[in-house]
Amino acid sequence: MGRKNAFYAQSGGVTAVINATAAGVIEAARENTASIGKLYAGLNGIVGALQEELVDTSKESLSAIKALKHTPGGAFGSCRYKMKDYDESPAEYERLINVFKAHNIGYFFYNGGGDSADTCLKVSQISEKMGYPIQAIHIPKTIDNDLPLTDCSPGFGSVAKYVATSTREASLDIASMCASSTKVFILEVMGRHAGWIAASGGLAAEKAGDPPHIILFPEIPFSREIFIAKVEQTIQDKGYCVVVASEGTQYSDGAHISGSLNRDAFGHQQLGGVAPTLASMIKQSTGHKYHWALADYLQRSARHIASKTDVDQAYAVGRAAIDLAVQGKSSVMVSIERGSGKNYSWSLGEASLIKVANMEKKMPRSFITKDGFGITQKAREYLQPLVEGEDYPPYKNGLPDYVQLKKIMVPKKLASDFES
Amino acid sequence: MGRKNAFYAQSGGVTAVINATAAGVIEAARENTASIGKLYAGLNGIVGALQEELVDTSKESLSAIKALKHTPGGAFGSCRYKMKDYDESPAEYERLINVFKAHNIGYFFYNGGGDSADTCLKVSQISEKMGYPIQAIHIPKTIDNDLPLTDCSPGFGSVAKYVATSTREASLDIASMCASSTKVFILEVMGRHAGWIAASGGLAAEKAGDPPHIILFPEIPFSREIFIAKVEQTIQDKGYCVVVASEGTQYSDGAHISGSLNRDAFGHQQLGGVAPTLASMIKQSTGHKYHWALADYLQRSARHIASKTDVDQAYAVGRAAIDLAVQGKSSVMVSIERGSGKNYSWSLGEASLIKVANMEKKMPRSFITKDGFGITQKAREYLQPLVEGEDYPPYKNGLPDYVQLKKIMVPKKLASDFES
Repeated sequence: MGRKNAFYAQSGGVTAVINATAAGVIEAARENTASIGKLYAGLNGIVGALQEELVDTSKESLSAIKALKHTPGGAFGSCRYKMKDYDESPAEYERLINVFKAHNIGYFFYNGGGDSADTCLKVSQISEKMGYPIQAIHIPKTIDNDLPLTDCSPGFGSVAKYVATSTREASLDIASMCASSTKVFILEVMGRHAGWIAASGGLAAEKAGDPPHIILFPEIPFSREIFIAKVEQTIQDKGYCVVVASEGTQYSDGAHISGSLNRDAFGHQQLGGVAPTLASMIKQSTGHKYHWALADYLQRSARHIASKTDVDQAYAVGRAAIDLAVQGKSSVMVSIERGSGKNYSWSLGEASLIKVANMEKKMPRSFITKDGFGITQKAREYLQPLVEGEDYPPYKNGLPDYVQLKKIMVPKKLASDFES
Repeated sequence: MGRKNAFYAQSGGVTAVINATAAGVIEAARENTASIGKLYAGLNGIVGALQEELVDTSKESLSAIKALKHTPGGAFGSCRYKMKDYDESPAEYERLINVFKAHNIGYFFYNGGGDSADTCLKVSQISEKMGYPIQAIHIPKTIDNDLPLTDCSPGFGSVAKYVATSTREASLDIASMCASSTKVFILEVMGRHAGWIAASGGLAAEKAGDPPHIILFPEIPFSREIFIAKVEQTIQDKGYCVVVASEGTQYSDGAHISGSLNRDAFGHQQLGGVAPTLASMIKQSTGHKYHWALADYLQRSARHIASKTDVDQAYAVGRAAIDLAVQGKSSVMVSIERGSGKNYSWSLGEASLIKVANMEKKMPRSFITKDGFGITQKAREYLQPLVEGEDYPPYKNGLPDYVQLKKIMVPKKLASDFES
């Protein structure tokens, strides 16, 4: 198909390892110059393509690209921007194709979660419709681990390691304090629709009865009465209670529990979230002293405690995307496949994008204990290998030494700016 | 003075490295059997002494004690319990002396912050008053770094490393997202009265203009107007704004800003804290999308990213306490002294407890920039060596492998239980 240039973009919430994927894409592209010309990265995701803001990755040094493997965040910028359907917004797609034409781009690598898979599929379809050939390949990334047709998603293993480690550490803290002070600790974690991240907190327990004592999943309807009773029972049995709560914890009618209790003095819904709401319930019902933490961005940017398995997979899916492109593939997602042996092994495969786009993989009920508050052995066996291995970044002056790219822009060729 | 037994207890909020101090005390005591008999640890701090609940540390293996050096939390349990003055509560002191007499305890090692220094001093004074000789030695520990007469306090360096690393990592995250999404990130950190921990977030910046863009210290009166203006200006200049806020951030009249805005539906003061309060102000004044994190216990238990300098100092102050005891010292605190050379060095000294007790060391004004929102070069030079060096715990199944002690109790000798 000749030497077309390639476009790579990062999409949606970033992770501790999405830049390892970028490194894989860039390094493999540089090794395949027979097929792939220049590799341009979208500044701030797909928005960079629409606005013709393209970073010339060839201007970045080998060492800078290598350092991406240990640098969190999105080195080229990401975006929260979902392309509309073609019928709703044809101008947007025409603009995209025009930018790709202007820069001789024939490969489209989109690195993101479910929404991005959908965008990637649309780009592929539109390229056919508009008669400009583009090989669109989706590279999985989401801390939520909710992409279908892949055993796991790069980004998840590192969040899981962070959450499990933090839960174990904070549990030792509260265990020391509970005799005369704090009796309940709540850690709120991400995962609005699927409980994978909350589940990973369960790895903190080495044996039955170890903290965390309660995990709240979006998949299990929340009952205040049952929750409070479980907290009370745990404090009676253990002296303290550790809760890992998904931000997506909800009542049986689908109403999120966060913000359900409180309004501020201005009548706005309270900003708190699940942890302070649960803390408030506990205080009102039991009077126990509590602490709570909200990890927020810390959990998904914590490259200092990334899972080596996750880093390796993130890098590998990037390289594999280039391989698939060179093989002439399009409308596919790189997938991670788990070996069937007793010891964990993984390899890469591919999945048809039409089956991936806009589907969410939730926690199977068999991964959650009968009472809805814990993870089963089956879940543990699934989760544990994903947090395996350490891959420390280099340190300088006592802190992780992360790289900032030069981000030299490709000169624009089109006259007008596009207002996305 | 013959072979008296020794008592060691952990007090107040625990840290990532207080067990390293315990390891130092126990190992050094075992090397000084000519002077020191058995070493008993109070179960849950001083409460363990009052209730005659003593852990026999001689029953713990060498390897378990060694593993304390990399295990966070308080291995023997801590407490929030402040002894009253003797005149107010003579029975409490009499009980303490009776327990010490019953177990032939002549050494009192108390490992804590300012309140504990005060307790340690009182024990020393009461032993004289009651004619039962006890050498009372205070071993510094506080993440707040607010103990006087020591260059720093064990526990602080590791929190500082955690906060600086987390700030750097979350800043890379928001920098990737800000073009189309979140524009403000707020990290709330501990330090109710002194801004040392908040200040450590400033280490995340490698050069002027790097995030964090705003640090809020308890020492600097908060003004909503000036804060919002600074946030707006930063977003204009940088595209996003990262804030590290001390939980002790307060108005000029001393009122804490947390809880000042909101009440819940039941009329209780909102549970949030500083970060959600700031987020609410920003939302109301500017409409920008924000994220916030509250590290809470995670910051002080994060042994996985402890500072090697801190671990070394924590272990060393434990050993030094035994040395001072063997030398016959009493009513002193082990102190850390900074060398005067250009390169950081430290050694141990001692400070009179009467000068230490109940004093708080706040951030000097010269450590805070003129506008009140950042740290100066002087602060940077003070803080940086304290986060230097990594000291990773061992990992097992992808998670830090922390030790749990057997905690075999010394048989009680006194008839009645004491109600503290």
